[in-house]
Amino acid sequence: MADVLKGIPVARSIELTAASRAAALVSSGVQPALAVVRVGDRPDDIAYERGVMKRCSSVGVSVRNMALPGDCAERRLVDILHGLSGDPSVHGALLFRPLPKYMNDKLVRNAIVPQKDVDGVTDVSLCGVFTGLEGGYSPCTAQACIEMLKYYGIDMKGKRAVVVGRSLVVGRPVAMMLLAGDATVTMCHTRTENMPEVCRSADILVVSAGREAMIGRDYLAPGQVVIDVGINVRDDGTLCGDVDYEAAEGIVGAVTPVPGGVGSVTTSVLVSHVVDAAERMSRQIG
Amino acid sequence: MADVLKGIPVARSIELTAASRAAALVSSGVQPALAVVRVGDRPDDIAYERGVMKRCSSVGVSVRNMALPGDCAERRLVDILHGLSGDPSVHGALLFRPLPKYMNDKLVRNAIVPQKDVDGVTDVSLCGVFTGLEGGYSPCTAQACIEMLKYYGIDMKGKRAVVVGRSLVVGRPVAMMLLAGDATVTMCHTRTENMPEVCRSADILVVSAGREAMIGRDYLAPGQVVIDVGINVRDDGTLCGDVDYEAAEGIVGAVTPVPGGVGSVTTSVLVSHVVDAAERMSRQIG
Repeated sequence: MADVLKGIPVARSIELTAASRAAALVSSGVQPALAVVRVGDRPDDIAYERGVMKRCSSVGVSVRNMALPGDCAERRLVDILHGLSGDPSVHGALLFRPLPKYMNDKLVRNAIVPQKDVDGVTDVSLCGVFTGLEGGYSPCTAQACIEMLKYYGIDMKGKRAVVVGRSLVVGRPVAMMLLAGDATVTMCHTRTENMPEVCRSADILVVSAGREAMIGRDYLAPGQVVIDVGINVRDDGTLCGDVDYEAAEGIVGAVTPVPGGVGSVTTSVLVSHVVDAAERMSRQIG
Repeated sequence: MADVLKGIPVARSIELTAASRAAALVSSGVQPALAVVRVGDRPDDIAYERGVMKRCSSVGVSVRNMALPGDCAERRLVDILHGLSGDPSVHGALLFRPLPKYMNDKLVRNAIVPQKDVDGVTDVSLCGVFTGLEGGYSPCTAQACIEMLKYYGIDMKGKRAVVVGRSLVVGRPVAMMLLAGDATVTMCHTRTENMPEVCRSADILVVSAGREAMIGRDYLAPGQVVIDVGINVRDDGTLCGDVDYEAAEGIVGAVTPVPGGVGSVTTSVLVSHVVDAAERMSRQIG
């Protein structure tokens, strides 16, 4: 049976460090703070927001919630993000996306100053993850995958990593972070031919395809480490990943469960970014 | 015997289009112009500069050469780049790198305004190639590889592409451009294990390793298309690529020669970017 790589201990470890750093900031007079900007009332966003607030509270990061109507003007949203960017009492800004279709995504997300872009959505953050040079923050879910590997002592160096999915939120950033860790990285997507064969060749398989149980037994091989980023809702309301978990359990070396895997780590990474941003800003001021 | 994918016809085709677009600009009163900024007197830079000037002249793009002493102050270089960025009679800026070690590379290259970054060195250009969204220009050598494939009718879609080398000038950008063309892309580097096996699995193999004849027969497979970006100088002064050309000739389906391959296309791409930049700027003004 495969090892189960649970997210909770990874998250706890990140939070423990973040909490002690947050406490040090508070005792030096700086209250780390995250602004959460939501447009409309999508249930997914509200659920994620609740998770973020809980995590922030346990680490000692304060949250400022800003809920805007679903028909909010682009200009108003941009003004709010500019305001947060200039507000010294806020250290990070989380903006829920996708934005309403009438908004210019590139324009709006880049209204966040890179120093507060704790969710890695600005061009500066994306450039940073591509070049490996300093700038902004890594997208949280992509970094959560890497934190999983690190926590469980899985060496990336020289290993064959295959990433399924090429989004800018997960696929492409995680590919660049695996590359920075000296893995040999293959990027797959909907146009990939012979995907089962490509996936079987992986030592580390990261799946962010957005399709329930897409990765079945013909995609898997003994000894693999499988990181399942997918979160899908079954007809009966239960959650499952992009990997056929029961198949994986019997084949691979280690696999992250859904729920209780990568998803549990993402918000911890976000909160640790806020603490990091607060430290950097307080150093610049101090 | 493998097909020989020569660069000259690809370059000619790009230049032909660029020349007619340049002529149209000139007749509307806009002389497309490139500024070439060189620090010091590296023979490689001077040779490349000569090639660029020749190519510009044949296309109808004027060149402004700015040669600075090898001990030029960073501030002076930045001022010059800012000056060119604001000068409406200049449409593109080419900056030779690596810069002297005492300069901050990130700071200097980003002094070029993205609209004139015809060599794809700014963060905006790198972000553009990573995200696939508009911004700046692609690094010329990376784009030259793609132009080769396009000219010779080699479809990328669904194909397995392997890129050897992960520099920001060639490896990483060409990987992202192959991905944008719907290839399944693998990035290899010095830490890759079993590289011969990985390379043999490629339908399209792009090599930018910087080591003479590193890619020998055990890296090659029948039917492959091999794009050799390397330019190395042998002890006897002749040029050769990163691929063992004689071995490749007898095994693969098609291969680019060195010299006379990708290198011949790079300056044409650069010049076409200058014409493109001039067109965009004249549209904005007009």
